[in-house]
Amino acid sequence: MQRHFDEELQQLKNDILRMGALAQEAIVRAADALKNRDEAAARKVVDADVEMDRLELAIDDKCLELIALHQPMAVDLRTITAVLHINNDLERIGDQAANIAKRTKNILKMEDVMLPVDFEAMGEHATRMIRLAVQSLIEGDAFLAESVRAMDDEIDRMNRVAHEELLQMIQKRPQFTDQAMIGILIARNLESIADHATSIAADVIFWVRGADVRHEYLATLD
Amino acid sequence: MQRHFDEELQQLKNDILRMGALAQEAIVRAADALKNRDEAAARKVVDADVEMDRLELAIDDKCLELIALHQPMAVDLRTITAVLHINNDLERIGDQAANIAKRTKNILKMEDVMLPVDFEAMGEHATRMIRLAVQSLIEGDAFLAESVRAMDDEIDRMNRVAHEELLQMIQKRPQFTDQAMIGILIARNLESIADHATSIAADVIFWVRGADVRHEYLATLD
Repeated sequence: MQRHFDEELQQLKNDILRMGALAQEAIVRAADALKNRDEAAARKVVDADVEMDRLELAIDDKCLELIALHQPMAVDLRTITAVLHINNDLERIGDQAANIAKRTKNILKMEDVMLPVDFEAMGEHATRMIRLAVQSLIEGDAFLAESVRAMDDEIDRMNRVAHEELLQMIQKRPQFTDQAMIGILIARNLESIADHATSIAADVIFWVRGADVRHEYLATLD
Repeated sequence: MQRHFDEELQQLKNDILRMGALAQEAIVRAADALKNRDEAAARKVVDADVEMDRLELAIDDKCLELIALHQPMAVDLRTITAVLHINNDLERIGDQAANIAKRTKNILKMEDVMLPVDFEAMGEHATRMIRLAVQSLIEGDAFLAESVRAMDDEIDRMNRVAHEELLQMIQKRPQFTDQAMIGILIARNLESIADHATSIAADVIFWVRGADVRHEYLATLD
């Protein structure tokens, strides 16, 4: 029974890896679509979000089924609830990538203008955070998860710089206000994606350090 | 022209107050629905989310129109982009409240069992964070916004305690696993709501301290 359970848990982790891969692909593709004014790529990101929504539900169901069938021990139960939370964050990353793609489709209807923001670099940073956060889950590595949390400051900074540059652009070249406003919103979407990666890392830390946290929890009851 | 613009900006702030009020109402009502097993109240929360989605779009349009018509100065532009971001966070709070309400509707189909979590206290804490975050925007008070960020630790702690209590409940009374799992997800929704309030506070700080931040930004170019 335990062996069968372990296999199902492994399968669950594979599903999360797949969600993580889809999330990363969506961000890279959305940034590409924006850079290369590629509407077909933007459309693919929106389609992929539908697939992620479906996979999220399937993973949720599998988690609940696993609990109902096996009545797992505390340690396994903790793994499953971590997967549930992380699954939800990955799905919301897919939503944000779809938002970027929808905004990209809007900007493609407008006059082409170079925005003074390196969205690709922001997307790469966010993608790296997701990859490491998912890896920290698979390897149960709280130190790796800590490093993801530390990376969040950098994307906050990139978002602030993007915001400033685009506000200046609106001042200097008001004819491109619409494009610049969309740029501000896209930079913010990328920052939100990084927030979800940070949230995944926090869940991994909570999960790996369950014993410490339980200790802390008991202390609160004193 | 400036007077007319100031009036429109004031109107925009009123709209955000309204969004904030709807967000708070949704959380209080969702917590009530869960506590009193009140399906009609849960349904009202889901309906209110549709109203919030509509209001969000109206505010977004008003922001973009204001910029296009008035080509505002840097300081006003910064206010409008702050409103745009905060509007988006409030809408996502509405989504989370709707998630709680949907989960409540599910739990109402199951056997009634007392969950060892004070969801009302969590909801009150989150609601207070939203109220203060919106107030910090209206009053342009960065110190008040700082206090909202500090409040986030407490709801993180509440969420961890809830998670632990519910995991223990699953161990001891496995027949109530489904109810406990929903409880874990609802506690997490409340924690996400507080994250959005914290994000609003960060935007207010960024907006109020625009001058400092610009300085910091210029330093990054050295």
